[in-house]
Amino acid sequence: MSTYTPPFSSGPTAPAARLAEAEPTSLPKDSAMIIVMRHEASAKEIAEVVARVESRGFRVNISRGEERTIIGVIGDERPVDGTQFEVMDGVEKTVPILKPFKLASREMHPLDSLIPLDGMKVGGNRIAVIAGPCSVESREQILESAFAVKEAGAVALRGGAFKPRSSPYSFQGMGEKGLELLAEAREATGLPIVTEAMSPEQVGLVARYADVIQIGARNMQNYALLNTVGESGRTVLLKRGLSSTIEELLMSAEYILAQGNSRVILCERGIRTFEKYTRNTTDINAIPVIKQLSHLPVILDPSHGTGKWEYVTAVARAGIAAGADGLIVEVHPHPADAMSDGAQSLRPEKFAQLVVEVQRIAQAVGRS
Amino acid sequence: MSTYTPPFSSGPTAPAARLAEAEPTSLPKDSAMIIVMRHEASAKEIAEVVARVESRGFRVNISRGEERTIIGVIGDERPVDGTQFEVMDGVEKTVPILKPFKLASREMHPLDSLIPLDGMKVGGNRIAVIAGPCSVESREQILESAFAVKEAGAVALRGGAFKPRSSPYSFQGMGEKGLELLAEAREATGLPIVTEAMSPEQVGLVARYADVIQIGARNMQNYALLNTVGESGRTVLLKRGLSSTIEELLMSAEYILAQGNSRVILCERGIRTFEKYTRNTTDINAIPVIKQLSHLPVILDPSHGTGKWEYVTAVARAGIAAGADGLIVEVHPHPADAMSDGAQSLRPEKFAQLVVEVQRIAQAVGRS
Amino acid sequence: MSTYTPPFSSGPTAPAARLAEAEPTSLPKDSAMIIVMRHEASAKEIAEVVARVESRGFRVNISRGEERTIIGVIGDERPVDGTQFEVMDGVEKTVPILKPFKLASREMHPLDSLIPLDGMKVGGNRIAVIAGPCSVESREQILESAFAVKEAGAVALRGGAFKPRSSPYSFQGMGEKGLELLAEAREATGLPIVTEAMSPEQVGLVARYADVIQIGARNMQNYALLNTVGESGRTVLLKRGLSSTIEELLMSAEYILAQGNSRVILCERGIRTFEKYTRNTTDINAIPVIKQLSHLPVILDPSHGTGKWEYVTAVARAGIAAGADGLIVEVHPHPADAMSDGAQSLRPEKFAQLVVEVQRIAQAVGRS
Amino acid sequence: MSTYTPPFSSGPTAPAARLAEAEPTSLPKDSAMIIVMRHEASAKEIAEVVARVESRGFRVNISRGEERTIIGVIGDERPVDGTQFEVMDGVEKTVPILKPFKLASREMHPLDSLIPLDGMKVGGNRIAVIAGPCSVESREQILESAFAVKEAGAVALRGGAFKPRSSPYSFQGMGEKGLELLAEAREATGLPIVTEAMSPEQVGLVARYADVIQIGARNMQNYALLNTVGESGRTVLLKRGLSSTIEELLMSAEYILAQGNSRVILCERGIRTFEKYTRNTTDINAIPVIKQLSHLPVILDPSHGTGKWEYVTAVARAGIAAGADGLIVEVHPHPADAMSDGAQSLRPEKFAQLVVEVQRIAQAVGRS
Repeated sequence: MSTYTPPFSSGPTAPAARLAEAEPTSLPKDSAMIIVMRHEASAKEIAEVVARVESRGFRVNISRGEERTIIGVIGDERPVDGTQFEVMDGVEKTVPILKPFKLASREMHPLDSLIPLDGMKVGGNRIAVIAGPCSVESREQILESAFAVKEAGAVALRGGAFKPRSSPYSFQGMGEKGLELLAEAREATGLPIVTEAMSPEQVGLVARYADVIQIGARNMQNYALLNTVGESGRTVLLKRGLSSTIEELLMSAEYILAQGNSRVILCERGIRTFEKYTRNTTDINAIPVIKQLSHLPVILDPSHGTGKWEYVTAVARAGIAAGADGLIVEVHPHPADAMSDGAQSLRPEKFAQLVVEVQRIAQAVGRS
Repeated sequence: MSTYTPPFSSGPTAPAARLAEAEPTSLPKDSAMIIVMRHEASAKEIAEVVARVESRGFRVNISRGEERTIIGVIGDERPVDGTQFEVMDGVEKTVPILKPFKLASREMHPLDSLIPLDGMKVGGNRIAVIAGPCSVESREQILESAFAVKEAGAVALRGGAFKPRSSPYSFQGMGEKGLELLAEAREATGLPIVTEAMSPEQVGLVARYADVIQIGARNMQNYALLNTVGESGRTVLLKRGLSSTIEELLMSAEYILAQGNSRVILCERGIRTFEKYTRNTTDINAIPVIKQLSHLPVILDPSHGTGKWEYVTAVARAGIAAGADGLIVEVHPHPADAMSDGAQSLRPEKFAQLVVEVQRIAQAVGRS
Repeated sequence: MSTYTPPFSSGPTAPAARLAEAEPTSLPKDSAMIIVMRHEASAKEIAEVVARVESRGFRVNISRGEERTIIGVIGDERPVDGTQFEVMDGVEKTVPILKPFKLASREMHPLDSLIPLDGMKVGGNRIAVIAGPCSVESREQILESAFAVKEAGAVALRGGAFKPRSSPYSFQGMGEKGLELLAEAREATGLPIVTEAMSPEQVGLVARYADVIQIGARNMQNYALLNTVGESGRTVLLKRGLSSTIEELLMSAEYILAQGNSRVILCERGIRTFEKYTRNTTDINAIPVIKQLSHLPVILDPSHGTGKWEYVTAVARAGIAAGADGLIVEVHPHPADAMSDGAQSLRPEKFAQLVVEVQRIAQAVGRS
Repeated sequence: MSTYTPPFSSGPTAPAARLAEAEPTSLPKDSAMIIVMRHEASAKEIAEVVARVESRGFRVNISRGEERTIIGVIGDERPVDGTQFEVMDGVEKTVPILKPFKLASREMHPLDSLIPLDGMKVGGNRIAVIAGPCSVESREQILESAFAVKEAGAVALRGGAFKPRSSPYSFQGMGEKGLELLAEAREATGLPIVTEAMSPEQVGLVARYADVIQIGARNMQNYALLNTVGESGRTVLLKRGLSSTIEELLMSAEYILAQGNSRVILCERGIRTFEKYTRNTTDINAIPVIKQLSHLPVILDPSHGTGKWEYVTAVARAGIAAGADGLIVEVHPHPADAMSDGAQSLRPEKFAQLVVEVQRIAQAVGRS
């Protein structure tokens, strides 16, 4: 394991700046694709597809079966967009072969990235437990929470000042006042702060107060926001969208990395399925899958993953057992008074018990 | 049917401004909820729940069965958040009774809203067909598209200048240059323009060129953006998120309406399911459901709903048959050269055929 | 269009009987597959994969890119199972190229199959509307239903005698008594009967009474049942499982066809998604997709597809507009008294209105 | 914890036999429901609903808000079906309050059920690891597998003799010959046998050879099969359907329990979601949820839950960390030669490592 060295410096010549001009980037290499022809495709149709592939500067490899002809596209430095071939006569489908993310991939960066967080490194041997209330609600509430989670063993404090809420009539967060209270809590406890930015114009403000900027699930594909936090250089906690695939999560990380910001922590927080007994379905498979596909650290949010406090501790244990690098847990001193997410928030004493149980699991998998 | 009159004027005292201060709003009335106690709940636990309900200013209605006690919460002017009760001892679950959207609901506004679009009114008897390429790619391409869709019978031109793309290496749109070309196409053809804004800071720019600002599926819960287009007063085409429920779509519309902007057109564009033969699954049920729940017009996007041009016409017919007020269709003069979404774009001649077939369906359901 | 001629006669030498002996079948030809090697795969690993492919009797086509080697598998007469290669060292994934169904595919049988149903042919120009109650509940109820749906224009009577219910405490159907009542209703009205068989041992009994044996959504992958109705030779109405892909539906049809029974009618009846406002999500895309992939007729069940009677007519119209060959609709003379599915059952007068509206749509798409 | 005592003896008067006559059962008590009236419901409509409720023998509790009237239904001994009220004029929706399963519920049976399996008790302190190949393929293969998994620490041998396959052209299992080989493997190793029955008529045959009859995911709602294994009295391993809710799983267990067979082990094996990187999505939340809702033991199948052998061990650890009572794991001596599920099968040495890692987790959660 080693600290990840970003392949690009940020600045006016950063790749994303060039991308805005719609120029092909030089990042991906050898983006191969397979074009499957319909079984009734004519020789003329096949020839036209080959001609188009070659006119794009790719080489072809033709495989003729009894029923189908299959055309392999041998890329060079540029990505291939299959849709420009799918619309041609005689084409049945295209199959991408290479992964669409590069900077986030383990192939490009085989060693685990270690992201500094205060004294520790997320992605290393030690489990990072981040905890705190869903929203900052008052000075008393956030300070009480901060001291409680620190005492239980958390390494950072979470708390929302800007809250994305599905209803315009719900509490929308305290705004900058909340950020100030978080800064006060940091000063009082020494815990670094994790808090969310919801729009590009909030990033500068949030970055003045936060150690880690959280991108929430609803904003995982808010590309303007991803670019802005990428430019900020601040550590980013990127949560998986509630119906985003693992691949889409890694492509959203790619946006941030492409801006030259290599400090990205991924977060599995449950996906939307047909099961309604829990608020979301924790995709525990995503933990080993992400560790295999990417060098970035991944943590689990068992609070959103389940939506009910009764299940948070069991799923937190499962996350660490599956290989997650940490947890982010909602803790509130008085859940019944919480202005948001009370049902999935742990009381401080239950959180302390969670930490104890998680530590035992961490040791069982050779971590601390 | 009547034109919808917004219940609030926009401006510094608009409701959303007040909401930002986290004050309870006076909009919803009588927000009832049911609290189901666990069968082993003690009399003391029941009494504590009742006390908390009453301390919040609500009345209670207690129903004691042999196995369970059920507590009805009779609201007054304020919304009730069930989670503050779910965390109490002895509570099994809470069940919301009232719908969480108000301004978007048909109960509040029984007649269909009619949204002016150039000469016509979306939501009225005439079907609104919006068409054009996914992205603006060049002056020639957008003008050719505009003349073609106008000739076929479209009432507005769509085309993206800012494109949300899952990969940072994909074409991100022409930006303001694209908006200028759209304006030129409007001048040449007379067609009003529908184009997307992706972030709050783009809204002002987009509003200078667009007749209708589109909020894309990925941004359906980008609340900062919703508030900004709400304040803009410009007509908004709000697309359903690819894993958003119908209720969430209506709550996102509520954000815009709460800013005093009543010109909202909803758009069903397919949801994400396990089925992989099509890019998305068109939720045709959503058409009659939305027409029942809301007074806002709803149109269908069969291009994204299917993701393959072969199925677009059949699903377009289905949408109108189900009661949609219009369609938004991707049309490209040369789909194989499209820089995005070529696979789901119709050639102009196929689009012209679509319009003919859709007109027949429109007549069959008593529309034009 | 032509009547489908089954490629196999039923009997002791039917293909499925041979399949039971686990012999490779001679049905599929040229089952190609692509094997994508990991970018770090060694020459030795590649050679081992090639050797294994060839040892299975397939030819290979090797395409070497800068980052990956891709191995094409050129099949002969046998299907290829990708998993036997996925477990080899150095293999990243396998991609099937050919469709896994043959007898159900349009490639094998380009013309639409026409399935006789009483006087008409399902899959032909005329729309087939099948209607009746969810369950047979009494002599009076089924006769009243039969006369009502016949008068409204239905061509067959549906009604369940054996009911799959998620709870063991729910009404499980009248059993053989229900079949007798259906036979009486047929005699009284002349309508052919569509009714469900739930297990192989029921097939003989049901076949004595039913013109069409329905395989319910929960049993779409009950292979023993599929084989038995395949052997029966009776027309089968095969409903899509609530979370089955279109491909799986066609593979289940393949089970029946492989027994030599070519009389299969497919039915889209809604799939399970995250949307909870409706009981299921009607997959309207499935209609044109199935018509493209298969020669078998497909009908729509808007009653299960929506789960609420208010939406049934709109979605029925959509189904015919999308190209469905018919409908199966739940109609009950007194829905509030229905022992099952009352909420999605239409009253006879609403069903009559549905038929009128559907006829207008049928004419708009050139059918009757 | 205690051994579960079935509340009913099996035999001609077993409850399910009575249910078949469609008589109301006396099992559930106090089945309450809430009926929410539309806000425009008239006094007459409300009165009619109340009259219908009372005519069914239930008591009512009426709660009148400013916008809505809500009618509570106080049950007696019988279940209430909401749909008979939902179709009445003025009714908006019905909300069930009581859970639809009884015998499977922890409320009825607060202590964990312990299911004997050879010398041990599933659901007790010791983790039960069941392992073996997907299919029995040959004498050599099953014996080699049996010795390998026994040596690694498995407590039972799994192996399919009848295989449900989505394609009729795939290997369908060895049938009775496979059962005989399993019996031979039991004799050689002492391991009890877990194997699947796919249809009611196979149950008798399978029960002659198997210690535990497996009901596969595709058959979770094959009610004829559930009733038959219920009558058999043999221990049943009931796998969750790939798109079944937890509640539906418990209701399928209820079918077996209602036949007087209390020996049911539940199995979470992954659900179908939009994520395609893994074959299924392991619903890890289901483990603590099922432990809370039911007294029945629950085990995890990480092989089907992930579909790729690389992730099996991580997810197995997660399952035990979350509180599962055991695991069922696919192990094959030569996965590349497996006739089914090779891609998700572990080699014996990897399985041995899995057992070691799982034991560490078991100890970390206080089990063995």
